Parts: sequence; structure tokens; C-alpha cells
Amino acid sequence: MKKGLFITFEGPDGSGKTTVSTAVTERLQKEGYRVRYTREPGGSEIAEKIRNIILDPENTAMDARTEALLYAAARRQHLVEKVLPALEEGITVISDRFIDSSLAYQGCGREIGIQEVYELNLFAVEGRMPDKTVFLDIDAETGLERIAKGRTYLDRLDQESIDFHERVFAGYQKVIEMYRDRMIVLDASLPVEEVTEAAYQAVRALLDE
Amino acid sequence: MKKGLFITFEGPDGSGKTTVSTAVTERLQKEGYRVRYTREPGGSEIAEKIRNIILDPENTAMDARTEALLYAAARRQHLVEKVLPALEEGITVISDRFIDSSLAYQGCGREIGIQEVYELNLFAVEGRMPDKTVFLDIDAETGLERIAKGRTYLDRLDQESIDFHERVFAGYQKVIEMYRDRMIVLDASLPVEEVTEAAYQAVRALLDE
Repeated sequence: MKKGLFITFEGPDGSGKTTVSTAVTERLQKEGYRVRYTREPGGSEIAEKIRNIILDPENTAMDARTEALLYAAARRQHLVEKVLPALEEGITVISDRFIDSSLAYQGCGREIGIQEVYELNLFAVEGRMPDKTVFLDIDAETGLERIAKGRTYLDRLDQESIDFHERVFAGYQKVIEMYRDRMIVLDASLPVEEVTEAAYQAVRALLDE
Repeated sequence: MKKGLFITFEGPDGSGKTTVSTAVTERLQKEGYRVRYTREPGGSEIAEKIRNIILDPENTAMDARTEALLYAAARRQHLVEKVLPALEEGITVISDRFIDSSLAYQGCGREIGIQEVYELNLFAVEGRMPDKTVFLDIDAETGLERIAKGRTYLDRLDQESIDFHERVFAGYQKVIEMYRDRMIVLDASLPVEEVTEAAYQAVRALLDE
């Protein structure tokens, strides 16, 4: 049996990644394609527990490398429990974030370095990189504006947070350069309907190949 | 100020590692040496939470690489929060297990491979290897006998478990070979008082250097 494709959606906060990737999945499913949407921890109980530690606001003492290791652990478990079995069954998996997020967020946002975070994640994914990645590209200014709008208290987006997000935006640009062959780069500053249509066309073309 | 020494105690289950390392620490403390005993997660709240996930008997679906990543995460956090600050203060840290345990247990016991687990742990410790390691050496047969005696139900030590422990014993022998310069190898098949005395003499000699 033909294996499913492993397609990831990537992009900084404010790029509309989740809205677009779920809409694309639903449309393809309605048309009869065997496609499954997921995002880490994606219903893996162990990965869920790991994520709770990462996101627990009480864990303020968490070191950046501990965080990177925990993301890699959750990624590993989600991959083994959820992604690989679906691909084996011939189902295409659309994953909202995967390894590139760690390269941008931990590698650049937390300033550990892309190469080190890449090697760490290779241990976690055992070389299983995405077949294709839909990258929702947006400039830092527009992205930060959208992030700010999503906040209840504007002042929560403080200077540290702005610097962090700017490093993440710059990090993603490096990731696009590194993986030109795997990337389908879409302009995410367009209205969300247009971005969704472009993403849908791109993924459908992959499935029809 | 002179930094503290980072000394680890290693050895397979049944080697008496914990009994010996705590006894050595207490004796040195009574003699006025600035020595602290620790073992992962060692009171780091985050490392403790990570360890709870690893040891939770409900997490039967845990992949071997997820386990290795979680141990590395707990190690990182314990190192940053507990070990490094003590060394900075000039306190010698005696750690009951550290990186070598992962090389033997995850690298060999779980068959991921020593080299891969080593590189993963380098990310976690950022090159901070122990200054010296007291290795309590014991042959597989004697070690397994001692492990079996410690169990409430003998049948819990099933064949899978025996094979696993035998790989760990063999793994530790490889680790000793790899790090000859760092290792102080003691015969742990001797009575525990003799092993403790030998370990005490070895550590005290390091402190008096």
C-alpha cells in the first residue's frame, strides 16, 4: 500500500497557520482524500503530560535547553504514536508545527543555535523529516501586530517578548533558506481566505501527483 | 574562589552505589569538607515533574527515545539549578548517577546506541562532564543476584528484565573503556564496608590534591 504524505504547516505566531491548516484538511476530507490534521501533542497521553510541564506558568526556572529537550521528547512520542501509524495506513498527515518550529523558537528565539537544535531533533525524529512544508510567510511587523491584537492585555507583549518574536521571525527565514526543496512558501499577509485557497491548491497538487 | 569538584558515582543496579556514595559524603562532611550529595532529580521541581512522567507505570507506551530525551531534560535542569551553583560556591558535588547511566541504560539497555545517547546528552550538559567518576564494578551474575534479593516478588525479574540488565552491565564495561582517565574503578563484589572505605580514600585523595 502507498504510504501517506507527511506535510507540515509552519510559520510564526500571527501567520494564521492553525486556521489555514484546519480549513485545508476539512476541505480535502470532504472531497474524499484520506487526510488527518494533527498537532503536537495530538492526543498522545505521554506527549500531553510533557507539554503540560513546558506550558505550566509555575515553571519559571525552566532552562532553555530543558525546554528544547522536552519539546523534542513530546515530538518523538507524538510521531511514534500518532504520525507514523497513520502514514503506514496510507493516510496523509497534516501537522500544525513540527521540527522547523523548534529550529526557529528554541534555536533562534531562545538563542541555542539552529544547528544544535537540529541535531537534537534528529535524535527525536530519527531522520523522519516532513515530505513537504507549507510555510506561511509574514513580515515581523505585521505578525507582531496580529499577535498584539490576540492578547487580552496589550502590555503582556513586553519588550522581551517582542525581541523574542523578532528572533523567531528571523529564524524562520533561515529555516526557509536551509530547506528550499521542501518548502512551499505562501504570502500570509494576504486575507486568510486567499491564503487558505493557495494552501489548499498546493496540498491538493501534492496528493494528486 | 576555587570551584568545587564534580564527582559522580556510577554502577549497575545491585552495585551498592547509593549506600556507598551517601556514606562517603557523610564521612567527609563530618571531617569538615564542603561536600554535597545529590542525585537526579535532586529537589529541582521541574526535574522532579519530568521524572514522574518517566517512572509513571501507566506510561507503558513510552518510546525508548522519548525516555532518553526526558532523562536528558531532567539532567539538564538538575545540573543548572543544583549542581553548577554548588560548584560555583566551591562545594564539591557527589552525584549518584549522571551521564554514564544514560549511556549504559538508554544506549545499551534500550539499544539506542552509546554514541547517539552521548551526543544527546552533550546537548543537555553543554560539555560539562564529571571531573572524576567512582565506578562500582560488579559482574552481571552477582549484580543480578543482588537485584533479585531486593525484590518483593522474585518473578518480577522476568527474562526481558534479565536481558535488559545484562545489556546494561555490558554497556557500563564499554563506558569504562571509553573514559579510562576519568574512572576510578572499584571492586563492588567486596563487602560494602570495604567498598565504602576504598571509595572514601579515593574521593578524599581528590579533595586533598
